[in-house]
Amino acid sequence: MAYNVPIMAKLTDCFNKLPGIGRKTASRLAYHIINLKNDEAKEFADALIEASKTISSCTICQNLTEGEKCTVCADAGRDHATICVVEDARDVLAFERIRDYRGLYHVLHGVLSPLDGVGPEQIRIKELMARIPQGVTEIILATNPTVEGEATASYISKLLSVFEVKVTRLAYGIPVGGDLEYADEVTLARALEGRREI
Amino acid sequence: MAYNVPIMAKLTDCFNKLPGIGRKTASRLAYHIINLKNDEAKEFADALIEASKTISSCTICQNLTEGEKCTVCADAGRDHATICVVEDARDVLAFERIRDYRGLYHVLHGVLSPLDGVGPEQIRIKELMARIPQGVTEIILATNPTVEGEATASYISKLLSVFEVKVTRLAYGIPVGGDLEYADEVTLARALEGRREI
Repeated sequence: MAYNVPIMAKLTDCFNKLPGIGRKTASRLAYHIINLKNDEAKEFADALIEASKTISSCTICQNLTEGEKCTVCADAGRDHATICVVEDARDVLAFERIRDYRGLYHVLHGVLSPLDGVGPEQIRIKELMARIPQGVTEIILATNPTVEGEATASYISKLLSVFEVKVTRLAYGIPVGGDLEYADEVTLARALEGRREI
Repeated sequence: MAYNVPIMAKLTDCFNKLPGIGRKTASRLAYHIINLKNDEAKEFADALIEASKTISSCTICQNLTEGEKCTVCADAGRDHATICVVEDARDVLAFERIRDYRGLYHVLHGVLSPLDGVGPEQIRIKELMARIPQGVTEIILATNPTVEGEATASYISKLLSVFEVKVTRLAYGIPVGGDLEYADEVTLARALEGRREI
């Protein structure tokens, strides 16, 4: 109805701007919205505004938080000597789900990608370095196993070499429940290389 | 971040309720929102509220409109004797895109689906019937070629048999640009059945 209902066109545009939402999906979502009750749409709108207003970065780990410090950094029961460095806030969630990790995090908010104009200044590496002298003993580099993720991990590990701190990287290998037949060569080679005695 | 940022969990829930948006996509969209500038989020929120408030059904064709009558029904230049019956407002948009159809529409806002509790009273059939005596000469049944769409078309055509009005259904056949090899048997059989002399 873009041709006669401007507000629909605008709402469709808004959805269209979201990552992974194309023109057709955006239109479907917009039509869904107008079939919502007014208070449901209001609830959605309020959540949008509130999220964009109240969420900020934790002053320590750069993770998203509503206050000044995130709940992980504020938790005295966690191991403050270990920092797991991740690309973005969703990765923290992934680690929290395994319920095994008791250390802190550091969210880089991106990876080095010179082609996209992302250098060390554009991501939160400086903030990570500032944390090291405060009794940190291990840094786990948990950036994604992509070209950019690897480059970022390698860059950070070089910077860390001046400190007396253990630097580790997540293990590579075949995913649990995966099928060897479908594993790519690089992953399989890494799994072989990293084999452990049982 | 559901574990420590309630507003993120709420925004993710809101996205998750949209059709075709799963948990992971919802989370990705929510993270995208908090990276927006405040005024962009506000614009999105405003569009949501405005759309859900100002859009209503055209009193004649039941299509979505901001005023009382939609622009199609209000257009005296269109053929008011022909009505194309469609399932929902997006179908109107599809017809408008071909720029060939000059008649009016009637939006049913659904199809008959007894299993889902949708009977003739739940969709806008009554409103369609009320329009027939007003000089309508042809009704084009353009519901989708699905079981429910067919049933709805057949139900409406029965109701229309008491009026002196031509009732037509869209042609079935192979889609333009399609490949015979990949056409399903039913479509191919219908295409054969509906063949025309050239």
